[in-house]
Amino acid sequence: MRLLVIGGVAAGLSAAARARRLDASLEIVVLEKSGTISYGACGLPYFIEGRVRQAEDLVVYTPEYFRKERNITVRTGAEVVAIQHPRREVQLRSGERVHYDRLVIATGARPLESAAQANEFTLHTIDDARRLKQFLVEKRPRRAVVIGSGYIGLEAADALRRNGLAVTIYDRNRNILHRDDEFLTGTIRKHLEQFRIDLHMGCEGVRDGADLVILAQGIRPNVELAAEAGVEIGRTGAIRADERMQTNLSSVFAAGDCVQTINVVTGCPAWLPLGTTANKMGRVAGANATGARERFPGIAGTIIVNVCGLAIGQTGLSVAQARAAGFDPVHARIDSLDRPRYFQGKRITVELVADRQSGRLVGGMVLGDEGVAGRLNVIATALQNRMRVDDLEMLDLCYAPPFAPVWDPVLIAAQQLKKV
Amino acid sequence: MRLLVIGGVAAGLSAAARARRLDASLEIVVLEKSGTISYGACGLPYFIEGRVRQAEDLVVYTPEYFRKERNITVRTGAEVVAIQHPRREVQLRSGERVHYDRLVIATGARPLESAAQANEFTLHTIDDARRLKQFLVEKRPRRAVVIGSGYIGLEAADALRRNGLAVTIYDRNRNILHRDDEFLTGTIRKHLEQFRIDLHMGCEGVRDGADLVILAQGIRPNVELAAEAGVEIGRTGAIRADERMQTNLSSVFAAGDCVQTINVVTGCPAWLPLGTTANKMGRVAGANATGARERFPGIAGTIIVNVCGLAIGQTGLSVAQARAAGFDPVHARIDSLDRPRYFQGKRITVELVADRQSGRLVGGMVLGDEGVAGRLNVIATALQNRMRVDDLEMLDLCYAPPFAPVWDPVLIAAQQLKKV
Repeated sequence: MRLLVIGGVAAGLSAAARARRLDASLEIVVLEKSGTISYGACGLPYFIEGRVRQAEDLVVYTPEYFRKERNITVRTGAEVVAIQHPRREVQLRSGERVHYDRLVIATGARPLESAAQANEFTLHTIDDARRLKQFLVEKRPRRAVVIGSGYIGLEAADALRRNGLAVTIYDRNRNILHRDDEFLTGTIRKHLEQFRIDLHMGCEGVRDGADLVILAQGIRPNVELAAEAGVEIGRTGAIRADERMQTNLSSVFAAGDCVQTINVVTGCPAWLPLGTTANKMGRVAGANATGARERFPGIAGTIIVNVCGLAIGQTGLSVAQARAAGFDPVHARIDSLDRPRYFQGKRITVELVADRQSGRLVGGMVLGDEGVAGRLNVIATALQNRMRVDDLEMLDLCYAPPFAPVWDPVLIAAQQLKKV
Repeated sequence: MRLLVIGGVAAGLSAAARARRLDASLEIVVLEKSGTISYGACGLPYFIEGRVRQAEDLVVYTPEYFRKERNITVRTGAEVVAIQHPRREVQLRSGERVHYDRLVIATGARPLESAAQANEFTLHTIDDARRLKQFLVEKRPRRAVVIGSGYIGLEAADALRRNGLAVTIYDRNRNILHRDDEFLTGTIRKHLEQFRIDLHMGCEGVRDGADLVILAQGIRPNVELAAEAGVEIGRTGAIRADERMQTNLSSVFAAGDCVQTINVVTGCPAWLPLGTTANKMGRVAGANATGARERFPGIAGTIIVNVCGLAIGQTGLSVAQARAAGFDPVHARIDSLDRPRYFQGKRITVELVADRQSGRLVGGMVLGDEGVAGRLNVIATALQNRMRVDDLEMLDLCYAPPFAPVWDPVLIAAQQLKKV
């Protein structure tokens, strides 16, 4: 019995590793089209920045490790060009055919636009990062344009600015981070200005005069291979799988950036490609491919990004997103300190969004310096439990002066929201 | 219509302020027996340490503020010696009688043992802290003994050590922080040794030879006044109130350190006097004293303390507590990094405790440097929502390298616990 996994980064390797843990006798083969597996793609901006010295430092495991320690065969440079499900075979670019009994599709995603000029770069794979780094070192560019203000665009802008480049960000959207939130856009613009990064929203972007262009308009799921094999594609454009990560084809699972899931707040399909989600989906797919019955419950949509020292976190729905999803949103936004003043408390902003009728929390945003991640996670946990604002307000969150003010900012925001 | 509040620190003033917000016409009088109201008692160790320069810096509001800004009368030096509920009157030490229509009892707690010698100190009130600080400045003591290893004892030990004193902690309990957890005791002992603080558990303590003795064996609720008036005392020894914070006497509410509540994990009465809980109870009592119907749902038992740079957080039940409460506890304890290594990730320990049969999470502990509070709060939120470990494992917690590893330590601990 052979489990075949297409894709050797987050989801694919999580699936393979989990399957091995649950089934010692299964034959497990992972096919990765690139030359590198198991790297932390989220660390790429920090390699560009310089904090991570070598791209190789982002590689967690090698094919060798998987072979020796896990009895998993990992083949790099092995690009699958077709899945022939009736014959339970995939075909590689080389022409070789590889049989499977169970299949996990973890083909990931790719940038919307690919680099066409020598000075254009995407920042999606480790090879992209190596190419960009080499360009920075050899060409010493001075002016960078970043197209796109999603988290990759923001992290890339930060990394380039720290390398001394003048940086301008353009985005055709009106607001940043796909949140449709003018307050957030304004806050980040003001923050970026302090670091002399210009942010221009609502325009296509002027690449002329830039020594370096980062293409970060977004990514799309790699579904062609699956779709051609008869795997159903969902309305988000990503592969549709059930909560077992099983596709419409028997014995075929899918996980990671190529798959959609459920937003636990709306109950609707959502596609939000992130490393954490990919790893969790991979674990579930790998387990179920061995015959287990595990479940991936969906996502709250939790994202955090650090831009020039400002931590920006969001989870669930913004006011605009909540309205679009059919809720009647009310929101409260408070400024507080993350700790008492005598512990160098710094400003932290918490916004909560709830549904007016039900009183149910539907989203939140946290901005600040320290303590943002923890508070965002509390809100995400509350969302996943469908908490009401009344109950949120009474959460028994920890307090001691080195860590928080006596009323945690999340609780203050909940109190404020109750008044609305 | 007059609302009378006995006690002017956390719970009492929260009650008064909330009542005012909901009812502009109510007459509100707060009676405080000491000379100072509205201070952050949790900040007292940091005044001893020196980080907070003056005790007055811990005072948030003055009686003047309450009179002018909130139309609330706050009388200091006004000690209530009796409650005559049939006549709706309290009697002050001066003999004066004060009428009430609604009463909130927020009489707080007091140390188990009081200071009897000139070099003995409790650290419970702002006056205690002032006296200790004066002693430190004037007598320049060199050797301190701390009796008790609860969070006050640990914070006091830390503060004194930072003042250059040799510090020894004694506790008659076998384990620290009332958790009955040898691992925790051992970890803290090792940590304290690095700062040359000696920790001796299971012994009464040797006060001879000490220039200074801190009495921190614990506190007990001030219930005598209420009990004599016919207010029911619960099995924890603190006042029994319902989830509206109402006592058995009509129109009489109670809030803060003098009241017991429900532990949301066990569903049983619990008494855990903390500032956050006092404030929440006070808000609910104040609201309901105006005729609202708010609810205090109980506590998870979330405590955090910083000792010489080690953050120690716990919530819910330890293994021993879970067993005593009738659960069949299983636990997992993992060591991880709070962030990737290239972001100076530091060691963090997460322990989760669950009930074997139901798979329900019943407690957790987090130890580390940064990121402890946020993770503890996620566990507390999970407890308050009665989450199962299966669901905890799939929480959509945030990830980006500046904030967390791709698998958050809480999720790793949940995975580990599932295997048990």
